[in-house]
Amino acid sequence: MMDAPTDLDRLIQLLSKLPGLGPRSGRRAALYLLRHKDALMKPLADTMGAVADLTTSCGSCGNFDVVDPCSICQNHGRDGHTVCVVEGVADLWAMERTGAFHGFYHVLGGALSAIDGVGPDQLRIPHLLDRLVTHGTIEVILALNATIEGQTTAHYIADCLKDRGVSITALAHGVPMGGELDFLDDGTLLTALRARRQL
Amino acid sequence: MMDAPTDLDRLIQLLSKLPGLGPRSGRRAALYLLRHKDALMKPLADTMGAVADLTTSCGSCGNFDVVDPCSICQNHGRDGHTVCVVEGVADLWAMERTGAFHGFYHVLGGALSAIDGVGPDQLRIPHLLDRLVTHGTIEVILALNATIEGQTTAHYIADCLKDRGVSITALAHGVPMGGELDFLDDGTLLTALRARRQL
Repeated sequence: MMDAPTDLDRLIQLLSKLPGLGPRSGRRAALYLLRHKDALMKPLADTMGAVADLTTSCGSCGNFDVVDPCSICQNHGRDGHTVCVVEGVADLWAMERTGAFHGFYHVLGGALSAIDGVGPDQLRIPHLLDRLVTHGTIEVILALNATIEGQTTAHYIADCLKDRGVSITALAHGVPMGGELDFLDDGTLLTALRARRQL
Repeated sequence: MMDAPTDLDRLIQLLSKLPGLGPRSGRRAALYLLRHKDALMKPLADTMGAVADLTTSCGSCGNFDVVDPCSICQNHGRDGHTVCVVEGVADLWAMERTGAFHGFYHVLGGALSAIDGVGPDQLRIPHLLDRLVTHGTIEVILALNATIEGQTTAHYIADCLKDRGVSITALAHGVPMGGELDFLDDGTLLTALRARRQL
């Protein structure tokens, strides 16, 4: 953009880096912000600054929160015998939204990937093993993505834990709710068929 | 999201209001920001705050800039005899990116629309007429969207200006560069055929 003010250029450039936005939609977002300065732009700048200053990664589970340990780890009403292992904080939030899990979490920060050079030490897996000792965990739920990397990671963790005397479970695979068989990929349908259950 | 910190919730909620983002992608953007706190989140918050504080709408043309009149209006190297009328600041920026226009701009702030109740007085059209008198304008280029509203606005402005002794032009309509006839809508093809030119 010619003759444009530098800060505005920089705002567009930074907005373009957000996932889901590119140079064009970054520009659109910047203009939208400028047109809604009081209702959106100033509150967003303030909130973003506050969150950047206050939010920290929980040293125990890896969740983002304003306190460390996070509010989930500090909640004594939760079931201390169950730990749900997830790849990222987004997955933790997704699990929380179900409202059905009342134990603690452990965020790995990714999945094992030979291609990307991600090994167990990059993933907070050693930290998970330490936590299980101190927590007296009875069940470890592996809620990892149903991808090659996620499943490799699940197998690796299951291997590490096999002599620890904890129960290791994983999320069920199968037909998603509302899913139509005709639109389902073959792998999912095959898995659902193999894991069929008695009605 | 259960038990989540309020500021983070608010950040997600505000991000979701950006054009192109929704609740899910807002959450994704918030997590991305948290994971790139120093490289993206803090600079973005600071830049956004600075732009919100400093940027203002140019009283003359309607462009956004840190100075009023804006840097384009203050640029004495530009051709003072031509004014390009656009609907929004995004259109002004698009025209600037072509690098082919060296006159001044006038941002209407929208287009006439009976459905949305937008009349000439909501659109800075009276202000345009005032500007033409003081500027000694020779040509008015109507660079309005090729929509019903844009074209209605173009006709309205052309009507207002017809006794002013200025040349009124509009952007050409036709086949876009790289456009394949087979994928083009009938209206565009018809316009291109009617406006065919001698090679």
